[in-house]
Amino acid sequence: LRKAGFPGKVLGVSSVSTISKAIELGVIDAGASARDASHSADLIYLAQPIHRIIEILPELNQWVKPEALVTDAGSTKSVIMDAARSLSRCQFLGGHPLAGKESRGVESADADLFQKRIYVITPRQAGDLETPVAQEFLRWISQIGSKTVVMDAPTHDRALAFTSHLPQIASTGLACTVAKQGDAAAQLFGPGLLDSTRLALSAYEVWADILATNRSEIDLAIGSYIEVLQRLRASLASDETGQFFEKGGGFAARLRTTS
Amino acid sequence: LRKAGFPGKVLGVSSVSTISKAIELGVIDAGASARDASHSADLIYLAQPIHRIIEILPELNQWVKPEALVTDAGSTKSVIMDAARSLSRCQFLGGHPLAGKESRGVESADADLFQKRIYVITPRQAGDLETPVAQEFLRWISQIGSKTVVMDAPTHDRALAFTSHLPQIASTGLACTVAKQGDAAAQLFGPGLLDSTRLALSAYEVWADILATNRSEIDLAIGSYIEVLQRLRASLASDETGQFFEKGGGFAARLRTTS
Repeated sequence: LRKAGFPGKVLGVSSVSTISKAIELGVIDAGASARDASHSADLIYLAQPIHRIIEILPELNQWVKPEALVTDAGSTKSVIMDAARSLSRCQFLGGHPLAGKESRGVESADADLFQKRIYVITPRQAGDLETPVAQEFLRWISQIGSKTVVMDAPTHDRALAFTSHLPQIASTGLACTVAKQGDAAAQLFGPGLLDSTRLALSAYEVWADILATNRSEIDLAIGSYIEVLQRLRASLASDETGQFFEKGGGFAARLRTTS
Repeated sequence: LRKAGFPGKVLGVSSVSTISKAIELGVIDAGASARDASHSADLIYLAQPIHRIIEILPELNQWVKPEALVTDAGSTKSVIMDAARSLSRCQFLGGHPLAGKESRGVESADADLFQKRIYVITPRQAGDLETPVAQEFLRWISQIGSKTVVMDAPTHDRALAFTSHLPQIASTGLACTVAKQGDAAAQLFGPGLLDSTRLALSAYEVWADILATNRSEIDLAIGSYIEVLQRLRASLASDETGQFFEKGGGFAARLRTTS
């Protein structure tokens, strides 16, 4: 926001040590309790693990200004949209920036993190995007370099089960599979294994909530992946493996023209 | 080699158009037929698809100087080591640099490609590393920034089935699985899906040979991966998923301290 020219005040709500590091790094202007920050904030941005977002929404309802906007960056949206029904005193707009790193903490703050990324917004109804405070929020999403995509929460959760949650499971599973092979395998690898295991570095503290709040869609996605792998495995004995490379390679190339 | 200070002449064997581009880019000094190049070469470096390496080894035997060294960069080693028994007139030393890109062709040449990479050497017997020409070759591997690791071909093929061939199959399979989800999925993704599908861009022309020459080990590796994914899937209903994240994350972190 600072890099994009935001002139307002940014309050941070976190532990004393994180607040102190965040001020030092120029990420926030000051620290505050959730209650004090909510009393004065025009925009309340919840970037916590999903279960903490769900816990704090009813609390916020006691403190917020009626003209404020509360939004979040949670990686699943259906459960959060349900929980946000408890926030009746001001507007709520669900969000999910498709940007991130495997590292966490204020030291990993990166002003270019949102550049050229998709920012999903999940309004409850179309009118949610037309309020003045929502309009201003959407302008800042554009200012930080992201492209807004509007959809309902279940559509988001179904798509992300395949494009985000499945890649995480695939990477964690791959790392566990290779780990069982012992020392020769741990030494004999190239850049491909590093790419394929980058997501395995992700914190379970974040993922526990994602997996718990999108379980049925993720179960479907893993099942679909296992079925493709079984067909790929069977194809090794025939000449059909090339069809998988063609289809997968074509899709991978298409992702790169989109992004 | 040039960047590392190699003072000798580098002949390239390829199509007329590739030779012309390679000279233009300063990658080689001149083009030659395989026969003419073999008549004069001290080192013959085979960097073709595996089936072409296997085809050319008996031909080379008619042309090589007795004091020459033939080596290769094939991604599987057992089948090539067997084929190299037909090369009786000079020494053969199997090799596999664990470096590469998903792009191909002389335009992708990169003088830093081998920096900090493992270079596997698979001698038939220990004495193969003691000849003057092998000693000089090993010195150049070190000069281009790689670390030599010596092992037998079956050990190499078993380890690479897990650390290279399985990640390729996992990435191709993931891309095929997400591709089936249609437009919403193709639009809603972050950097994680790009990392996870980078290997899916690889050319089947290269991989067909790898898969065909290491089939039983790759079959085992895919089976092991599917089994881990099934256990991971089952764990979503319990609290055990964290153990997979811990094990996989620990292994992924360990790879990064090794490399």
